[in-house]
Amino acid sequence: MAGYNIGIVGLGTIGRGVVKILARQQSFFTDTLGLPVTLKRVADIDESRFESVPVGDAARSTTADPILKDPDIHIVVELIGGTTAAREIVLGALRVGKHVVTANKALIAEHGPEIFAAAEQNGVSVYFEAAVGGGMPAIKTIREAMIGNDITSVKTIINGTCNYVLTHMETRGLPFDAALRQAQEAGFAEADPALDIGGGDTGHKVAIMASLLSGGYVPYGDIPIEGITAVSAEDIAFARDLGYRVKLLGIIKATDSAHTLDVRVHPAMLHLDHILASVSHEYNAVLLEGDAVGQILLYGKGAGELPTASAIISDVIDVARNIAGSTPVRIPMGFYSAGGIMKTRPVAEVVSRYYLRFTVVDRPKVLAPIAATLGDHGISIASVLQKEGSLKDRVPVIILTHAAREAGLRAAITAIENTDFVRDKTQVIRIEE
Amino acid sequence: MAGYNIGIVGLGTIGRGVVKILARQQSFFTDTLGLPVTLKRVADIDESRFESVPVGDAARSTTADPILKDPDIHIVVELIGGTTAAREIVLGALRVGKHVVTANKALIAEHGPEIFAAAEQNGVSVYFEAAVGGGMPAIKTIREAMIGNDITSVKTIINGTCNYVLTHMETRGLPFDAALRQAQEAGFAEADPALDIGGGDTGHKVAIMASLLSGGYVPYGDIPIEGITAVSAEDIAFARDLGYRVKLLGIIKATDSAHTLDVRVHPAMLHLDHILASVSHEYNAVLLEGDAVGQILLYGKGAGELPTASAIISDVIDVARNIAGSTPVRIPMGFYSAGGIMKTRPVAEVVSRYYLRFTVVDRPKVLAPIAATLGDHGISIASVLQKEGSLKDRVPVIILTHAAREAGLRAAITAIENTDFVRDKTQVIRIEE
Repeated sequence: MAGYNIGIVGLGTIGRGVVKILARQQSFFTDTLGLPVTLKRVADIDESRFESVPVGDAARSTTADPILKDPDIHIVVELIGGTTAAREIVLGALRVGKHVVTANKALIAEHGPEIFAAAEQNGVSVYFEAAVGGGMPAIKTIREAMIGNDITSVKTIINGTCNYVLTHMETRGLPFDAALRQAQEAGFAEADPALDIGGGDTGHKVAIMASLLSGGYVPYGDIPIEGITAVSAEDIAFARDLGYRVKLLGIIKATDSAHTLDVRVHPAMLHLDHILASVSHEYNAVLLEGDAVGQILLYGKGAGELPTASAIISDVIDVARNIAGSTPVRIPMGFYSAGGIMKTRPVAEVVSRYYLRFTVVDRPKVLAPIAATLGDHGISIASVLQKEGSLKDRVPVIILTHAAREAGLRAAITAIENTDFVRDKTQVIRIEE
Repeated sequence: MAGYNIGIVGLGTIGRGVVKILARQQSFFTDTLGLPVTLKRVADIDESRFESVPVGDAARSTTADPILKDPDIHIVVELIGGTTAAREIVLGALRVGKHVVTANKALIAEHGPEIFAAAEQNGVSVYFEAAVGGGMPAIKTIREAMIGNDITSVKTIINGTCNYVLTHMETRGLPFDAALRQAQEAGFAEADPALDIGGGDTGHKVAIMASLLSGGYVPYGDIPIEGITAVSAEDIAFARDLGYRVKLLGIIKATDSAHTLDVRVHPAMLHLDHILASVSHEYNAVLLEGDAVGQILLYGKGAGELPTASAIISDVIDVARNIAGSTPVRIPMGFYSAGGIMKTRPVAEVVSRYYLRFTVVDRPKVLAPIAATLGDHGISIASVLQKEGSLKDRVPVIILTHAAREAGLRAAITAIENTDFVRDKTQVIRIEE
């Protein structure tokens, strides 16, 4: 029975989880599955981790070179993150004929075509389940379980930090900054949370899913991304009054053109009955819609030591099974690099319902001109909520619209903001069905 | 490029869906995936289906024999259901070296060891994603995505008929019979719904999942099964008052012994905040808990033409990929037949919280002796709800208990029912956390 030797580059949180699961399940993999998977080498720039992580007999190095140079290593597990050193290591491993398993969403999203082309040229594969939704099998479900479907839409809550912050803003009535601090104290937000709260992390994951389901490459840089920093506790409370909840959503929708996708990341209001509205705290979910299967929801923990390591292990075993056969590349990724660059629909062309919060002077008869201006731009009003303001001389006017084209909506808002009764920038949050 | 020829046995609802998806996705499978999958033969006892289902150039027969005898058929898709003819056809196909894809939960649950042994002896595989949860990738998630996990529990709503009936009993206040009739009229229940509402269908699916995750064989006949026919609209309304919802659950829990599982099917009350409580109408869900990944929920349509066909197609493509390599059996099933028969924990040993509805005479001081008798058997009361009765001389007394051993609970109920103030059989519904 051939063995499958693994080299792990990066012994941080996820690397430690992978080491633990490999040790725990070794006899199951070897005896029951017939796949003797061995941790042969580990690399980390921080040598203290060779002691703090139970790497056993694995050979240790402070660079990835010994792993790439060892002809007995079959699978390189890249867990250092980032797109500079990680890119070199992944491309280096592929070029010497090693399979790669990675959790690196930025790397796949930003350098996918180059990486998949290198894998294809060298007859090896790159697996990346852990890059999207941690332990949830989002990639496996898209690539394998839904293979008989055209996937027509994806709606996803895929950043645990944002979801934790938004949940705590709602349930505890906290302002954004306080909720973020609490998430950091609870270990659900990084010290530098910019990539999470700015929506970039969600964007990376959405770029990967959009590319997979379209059969082309959706560049990360082409995706309109808004984070959650502009969402106020006030908006969350108003949403709740109206029967809605605010979530940071990644959205992918097919359009009439096979070459264009509607892809975006932004805060969105979901009706409380929406299945995604009940995804709270650090949990993630991916709601996939296929032309055959209808809706499939995956829900689980999208981050953390063992949940993410669980996805890495699933990939390692898949690759070992591929090697055991004569199909080192079971699932071809050529279409990702060869399918061409997909276009993304400009935000101005998006058609959506909207939540609008105008901040106006506290005097009668301001609603009429707002409604008139919206009407002039073809935007019809579904409901209005006018409350007493917390600030002197300023009151919020909340309007939910029916479906409208974003370009028209933005023109209407500009016109309304040019009047003398508007006191602040208007808050706009899209409503997703 | 080698081709992969399919023979479908049974052109009912699911068969028609499989034919449709194969036609729709043929160029994608052939050109993009490099897997030319061809529908070569179809069989159905009802010849009219060769006209009503768009089978194209496929050769037609009224028995499965021509499919089994055709050396060019690689994959037999069994869709006739039942455990008599289907068993013969599946075993026959395996014995002549053909792979089998089936949606037949009864066959796998009741004859799994025989079938997997036959597959192993002949170097072929049996795939059965569609047998559990239709289009949801439950089997793939258990066998592949969670391969690095010990799965410690499964809770599942996996019968669309029961869930539709219970949802409509709650939302419309209907009695069981009326809700069932409505489900039949809406096409969500069979003319003969016994296997669904009696819990047998859920039992088959739970038996398969329990076997897969335990590495042994859990006989269907060993699973304690209660259906939903005894659930009344009154119980559902009381549950709602108490913040709970009634669902038919399939439950699998690891025990202290590796050879024993706690497996059961019965109506259960779930707190309204429970993620499974929001699974309504004909939708299904599987909540898996792994020691590494934590909770993963899968949610989707568990039945219907295209959702179920979507799962069949996923299996067909997996098998084609296996054949394309030299690993016709990518995922060994030998442990299923060789792992021995798993024991199931007797219901008397189950520890659970309970909802109890006593029917007593309408007079003061009946609560005290009930509480005393429960206390004598070590059962402590969490909450009590006493309402006016709808029938003269009879009132319901609702008690939610703390966790108790079922044997003690049953003894207490027997003692209470032997008093002169009890007017009817006591309703017992377990509460799941």
